Amino acid sequence: MENKPVHVVVLGAGFGGLTFCQSFFHPHARVTVVDRQNHHLFQPLLYQVASAGLSAPDIAQPVRSILANKPGVTVLMDNVVDFDLNNKTIRLEKSSLTYDYLVLALGSVTGYFGHPEWEQFAPGLKTLDDALRIRRQVLMAFENAETESDPAARERLLTQVVVGGGPTGVELAGTFAELRRFVLASDFKHINPVNARVVLIEAGPRLLAGFSETLSQAAYDQLKHLGVEIRLSSPVQNITEHCVELAGGETIVSNNIIWAAGVSASPLTKKLGVNLDRAGRIKVNPDLSLPGHPEVFAIGDIALVFNENGAQVPGMAPAAMQMARHVGRIINEELTFPGRVYRPRFHYHDRGTMATVGRSAAVAKIKRFEFAGFFAWLIWLFVHLMFLIGLRNKISVFLSWVYSYLTYKRGARLITGLDKDVPV
Amino acid sequence: MENKPVHVVVLGAGFGGLTFCQSFFHPHARVTVVDRQNHHLFQPLLYQVASAGLSAPDIAQPVRSILANKPGVTVLMDNVVDFDLNNKTIRLEKSSLTYDYLVLALGSVTGYFGHPEWEQFAPGLKTLDDALRIRRQVLMAFENAETESDPAARERLLTQVVVGGGPTGVELAGTFAELRRFVLASDFKHINPVNARVVLIEAGPRLLAGFSETLSQAAYDQLKHLGVEIRLSSPVQNITEHCVELAGGETIVSNNIIWAAGVSASPLTKKLGVNLDRAGRIKVNPDLSLPGHPEVFAIGDIALVFNENGAQVPGMAPAAMQMARHVGRIINEELTFPGRVYRPRFHYHDRGTMATVGRSAAVAKIKRFEFAGFFAWLIWLFVHLMFLIGLRNKISVFLSWVYSYLTYKRGARLITGLDKDVPV
Repeated sequence: MENKPVHVVVLGAGFGGLTFCQSFFHPHARVTVVDRQNHHLFQPLLYQVASAGLSAPDIAQPVRSILANKPGVTVLMDNVVDFDLNNKTIRLEKSSLTYDYLVLALGSVTGYFGHPEWEQFAPGLKTLDDALRIRRQVLMAFENAETESDPAARERLLTQVVVGGGPTGVELAGTFAELRRFVLASDFKHINPVNARVVLIEAGPRLLAGFSETLSQAAYDQLKHLGVEIRLSSPVQNITEHCVELAGGETIVSNNIIWAAGVSASPLTKKLGVNLDRAGRIKVNPDLSLPGHPEVFAIGDIALVFNENGAQVPGMAPAAMQMARHVGRIINEELTFPGRVYRPRFHYHDRGTMATVGRSAAVAKIKRFEFAGFFAWLIWLFVHLMFLIGLRNKISVFLSWVYSYLTYKRGARLITGLDKDVPV
Repeated sequence: MENKPVHVVVLGAGFGGLTFCQSFFHPHARVTVVDRQNHHLFQPLLYQVASAGLSAPDIAQPVRSILANKPGVTVLMDNVVDFDLNNKTIRLEKSSLTYDYLVLALGSVTGYFGHPEWEQFAPGLKTLDDALRIRRQVLMAFENAETESDPAARERLLTQVVVGGGPTGVELAGTFAELRRFVLASDFKHINPVNARVVLIEAGPRLLAGFSETLSQAAYDQLKHLGVEIRLSSPVQNITEHCVELAGGETIVSNNIIWAAGVSASPLTKKLGVNLDRAGRIKVNPDLSLPGHPEVFAIGDIALVFNENGAQVPGMAPAAMQMARHVGRIINEELTFPGRVYRPRFHYHDRGTMATVGRSAAVAKIKRFEFAGFFAWLIWLFVHLMFLIGLRNKISVFLSWVYSYLTYKRGARLITGLDKDVPV
């Protein structure tokens, strides 16, 4: 081991993979991190790119430059093709990697609960490409409505449907309602954007099921105040082109349907040959290793993990980051004390959750304290700025927020990608 | 005329079209401006989006919001399909417009001097989509080189060719040389970006033919200092996939070829049935109207205009803006004094030209004064910030420049559009 360093391969440079690379160091180990994108994406603000408030580069940072000063870390931009866990080998598109330790941090994709055919009509929001496509679609709908003479077609263009009342759905519905009401209100001559509808659909009896009933109600009231139509206890029966059918019988016609109702683990987990839950997550051991493969760990959204009390660890950035540090500590100790067999179990420390609804409106739960309204919104702003990577991005996002707050405008009202043959 | 306002249709919201809408007002006239994009693009900084220094939204502003407070101006986002000048009608994709006055401000496209087949191998830089595609291509080349084991393929990936030694070509070559030398230098483990080649090809005997020989030489020296290989008097014979053949016999192999050697007028001018020059520009009357159509004007890059002294007016933003104001004054006077027949000829006031090479390096000519180096660069920065539309964009671009200057980094090192089926 003195001559040949131990090779740790990390798949994915999201919150989990990146935190592992940043926190792990051992003089006898080298780390290779593989991601299919060149950038780490700050997903919590992705909805603000989709709604034209932030530029794509504001919430993305090249993985290479984040890790440029980490000794012993190599970054590869490549796609994972297959795993051979028995021979400790990963096949990538452009090369193969053998590992001594493997950290799977592949993240999640939009999940359609067994209805993959809905994706074409109701895209999700997981990548920057998704966000830029949604931004283009939403802004184009208003442009097309301005020149549309058929009232039914115009209404379809001016109706925005968001499926799913979790944090992402609430944030999207809120930001689209504001876009319509404040940002676009005075810019059109033939249509009145204020008459555009935003409909938020939730299968369960309340929004933000992960929060208390008080905070759910607060988010509900804040969205209502923005003019969002909310359908609770309304599971989606079917989605076809421009059409959402609800269980209650209602049909909503819209050119702009966004799916924010669920995620599943990266489909690559299916190639591992291990036990998965319905959402494709890996049923890991309490130490986050894979059953039968102590040298392989799964962290973040692809891992199905429970605390001692039986509560499932949520698929959120702080959980992925805590898992990354946990696995880093285990590997570090095993390299420092060869032969060590004891591994602690992972325990998730819930430091709080929050969701923003719009201008001066948010809900937040921190330990036992709950906040709704302006103060929750300030906490939300502060926490997101703090965790955003890179001083340049912090300053740029902060200024964009100040600008939007003062002017009621959005700085990235930009339609790109109209050249159909040019995927940019 | 008291009851039915005169209708002025403006095609294009670039520097010419937008300036017309901003400067023209008459109580008896209404204006409709049509553009195929939703945004006005500040083209002089487009190369900085292509080289990852600026975000796309930094140099674009929605036409609607720029003109939101202009009374009597309607904005349509649509494509021009055909003209019927005899019936004073424009056919758009989604509707038709009849006009009393027509202002053609359709701008230019990349021109290949009769070799349209070169476009697929050597794309140009005229739109944000072009810029984002070039950004992706250039950054991907380094990523692919990092994992490429074949030395010849690696060299092809690490060679950047810019065809055309005018201001755009000089700016692109300079910024790519800096990207390689400062920005990416320390981020890769297997390749050394500093060894990447940047080759600038010019058909004529010197760079920046529109400037004096002293300034040409200054730009040449500044680019040499950055490590750019410059080929003068080297017309391109042929371009095939990954390959540029020069008249002298040299062949340069590269995955990254950019065409900055020429522009032609929007191909829509061919549908007007009027006399055009070889670059597709309209041979207008001295007052900028079309021969035989006093109610139709052409301004900006699509107009072939000469000053009294016979010098051709250059295809630059200041010229387009001066033409816009000239046409606006003519229409305003004819509405104010019906029956008026005298129209002044257009005269271009050359306030100066400039081109930047890189960090602290630029050339500028202002009236009879010439500058090269740091001071020219400061003038360049100042003038571009001053003319950029929107306070938000000014601040954002200024901060991006300060950031890049201090850290030697670029804020938009982002590869998007990898989903091949998703043009975003």
